[in-house]
Amino acid sequence: MYFPQFIPYSFIEKEASHVEGFSPELALVTVGGGKELEEKLVVRPTSETIVNHMFTQWIHSHRDLPLMINQWANVTRWEMRTKPFIRTLEFLWQEGHTAHATPEEAEKEAMQMIDVYTKFAYEEAAIPVIPGRKSRVETFAGANRTYTIEAMMGDRKALQAGTSHNLGQNFSRAFSTQFTDENGQRQHVWQTSWAISTRFVGGIIMTHGDDAGLMLPPRLASVQVVIVPIWKKANEKNEVLDAALSIKDILHSAGIKVKLDDSDQRTPGWKFNFWEMKGVPLRIEIGPRDVSSRSVVVSRRDIPGKPGKVFGISMEPSVLVPYVKEKLDEIQLSLLNKAISFRDSNIVDVTSYDELKEAISQGKWARGPWVGSDEDELKIKEETGATIRCFPFEQPQGPKMCLMTGSPAEEVAIFAKSY
Amino acid sequence: MYFPQFIPYSFIEKEASHVEGFSPELALVTVGGGKELEEKLVVRPTSETIVNHMFTQWIHSHRDLPLMINQWANVTRWEMRTKPFIRTLEFLWQEGHTAHATPEEAEKEAMQMIDVYTKFAYEEAAIPVIPGRKSRVETFAGANRTYTIEAMMGDRKALQAGTSHNLGQNFSRAFSTQFTDENGQRQHVWQTSWAISTRFVGGIIMTHGDDAGLMLPPRLASVQVVIVPIWKKANEKNEVLDAALSIKDILHSAGIKVKLDDSDQRTPGWKFNFWEMKGVPLRIEIGPRDVSSRSVVVSRRDIPGKPGKVFGISMEPSVLVPYVKEKLDEIQLSLLNKAISFRDSNIVDVTSYDELKEAISQGKWARGPWVGSDEDELKIKEETGATIRCFPFEQPQGPKMCLMTGSPAEEVAIFAKSY
Repeated sequence: MYFPQFIPYSFIEKEASHVEGFSPELALVTVGGGKELEEKLVVRPTSETIVNHMFTQWIHSHRDLPLMINQWANVTRWEMRTKPFIRTLEFLWQEGHTAHATPEEAEKEAMQMIDVYTKFAYEEAAIPVIPGRKSRVETFAGANRTYTIEAMMGDRKALQAGTSHNLGQNFSRAFSTQFTDENGQRQHVWQTSWAISTRFVGGIIMTHGDDAGLMLPPRLASVQVVIVPIWKKANEKNEVLDAALSIKDILHSAGIKVKLDDSDQRTPGWKFNFWEMKGVPLRIEIGPRDVSSRSVVVSRRDIPGKPGKVFGISMEPSVLVPYVKEKLDEIQLSLLNKAISFRDSNIVDVTSYDELKEAISQGKWARGPWVGSDEDELKIKEETGATIRCFPFEQPQGPKMCLMTGSPAEEVAIFAKSY
Repeated sequence: MYFPQFIPYSFIEKEASHVEGFSPELALVTVGGGKELEEKLVVRPTSETIVNHMFTQWIHSHRDLPLMINQWANVTRWEMRTKPFIRTLEFLWQEGHTAHATPEEAEKEAMQMIDVYTKFAYEEAAIPVIPGRKSRVETFAGANRTYTIEAMMGDRKALQAGTSHNLGQNFSRAFSTQFTDENGQRQHVWQTSWAISTRFVGGIIMTHGDDAGLMLPPRLASVQVVIVPIWKKANEKNEVLDAALSIKDILHSAGIKVKLDDSDQRTPGWKFNFWEMKGVPLRIEIGPRDVSSRSVVVSRRDIPGKPGKVFGISMEPSVLVPYVKEKLDEIQLSLLNKAISFRDSNIVDVTSYDELKEAISQGKWARGPWVGSDEDELKIKEETGATIRCFPFEQPQGPKMCLMTGSPAEEVAIFAKSY
């Protein structure tokens, strides 16, 4: 579906915590068609309000539920300090909005979507995110509960990479989004919303990239293999290009995303650097000697320089295609495992505020039992710059004591500095 | 690519005719993050200005040309009288922007894109558009020449369904988008832009739809075939649903977009009406008697009622699949041919202003020789409500005299009322 991006200001005001959370970040249209508008319009920072406005017209009976919609759109949140992909005034996302007859269904939906995002992060982007629940302080403005996936970037800052909200009846009560249940009673619907954005692109860059540029996980790379033909003398050119083209066709037919860089204007060395910077997982070089020996040289982007190079791989499709597919799978797995090691070696279990401060000052994430108050949490933020990223779903067993208050705690929280 | 949708007002002002054309239609953001902005921001009505702002940084040498980009985005043009899909304050489109080293290349690109749109309209949407050149009065604000595809709707109004602009050097001079040519000289680039929007959805609805609802061309229909199972007694239900499901699988495996409407809550008659309204090209009914005879009933959306129904089509995949594919092709062609007949029977060749007025007053399109002035054109608009839709690329041979001035004319123009 697609909803209008201009939302009447009065819509935003209907849900009290929503307007409180978003009003400092709004862009307002006040002039349209040369005239001052009677009611200013908010450029959509998120769409719960306008979606509910329509849901009231679409939902009548329990037979209309669940109602689940998805929108791909741009959203605007006024930012003073922007950072490419991570924090931009305008960004692109998908936002899902659902309405259910029961709170159990809504909770199940919110959990299912954070699980979808978790799987996407692990399996496609090779980003080992930690899924969990946000603290009250960090919960979405208008939600009862916010679930999040938190990713550790190369600089060890945390990135909130996707969220799913159980909105309870907050918006349905504000907008009177009601249905008639099976007993003929009018009820407010139970809702969720969830989103993942272009910020995730930044997450991929900052999880896998290195000083040479991007390093894309093969499953997401738009070019998985680049072929660089090499020739010195003019009479070598044709046979090298012919061989390169036939390799391209072989890989393409096998469903591999392949690019042949046959431009005359750049040297092979320039092309190597260029495609490394672009993060292409595998490079195939082919020169006159390779043509004679019916073989190629294959280089892995994730193992820089000589160690990542393998000479003399046969051009025969029955050898080359399985070899390339296997290498792409290896790279995908290797990126994930490297990111998991990096993540796990940078999370410190802490039992006291001093240990927490020590971990944070070393640039690490701190994980420790927590039943502190909102004020305690804000104090940590002020004193260390770290916030509770989430209460992870995966919790250690056994008795725990709050690192701040010493009271018995049921859960550990993860603290980190974040983007 | 994706460009920011907020454009500094000063960008819009740089190209004189662009700001003149667009300023009455702008939405302006004047407040961001709670503060009055120093420079107001225009919500993108089109992106030539911000694209050129970036092109100046991306284009240096003739080796950087041609530079061709495409963006899928929302755009905003303030409209007093909106009409769903056709004229909305916000709409979605694709916009292409190109920069070239020579005027010939730019002209070729602009022509190529209007040709792409023409083919899409004919071959996918079954809309027999008339491609041609806009008059000076109707040319895009900032273009040297605008090419258009004009479609005749069911009410015989014209719809401008896509445009391609040769921008010359208007924007490159305004923004100093320059390159160093092969002789080391600095030159301004030659540019084009082109777009097709959600308005086209309205074009499909209003070209093919009837009083029963949508009628979608099979190539664009998201559901090409709907299967409606029919049973009366409970003991019939299972065998009918089993057969319906197996037909669904057969069609789906053959690459046909098929939907089985097996809901219990609605009657077959209700489902017939519902899927007709949704414009599904083919309906397959299957009841207990059909199951026994291993056959189905197939109905065409484009031939309403009994005449469009064929009984006793065998369920055997080797019969059913080719039959359904053939019918879908027939419907696609039939919709196009029907629209062509309708269009051609509603275009009148005129040789005088009186004949033009007569044709327009009958709700038809008038086609006649034209070398009138801009003022003549505006007079026609005022007196008849019709505008020049285009000078069609396909022109009649032989000498012509302007319907208005009587002077020798090289081209005929098409006049019509439009959306």
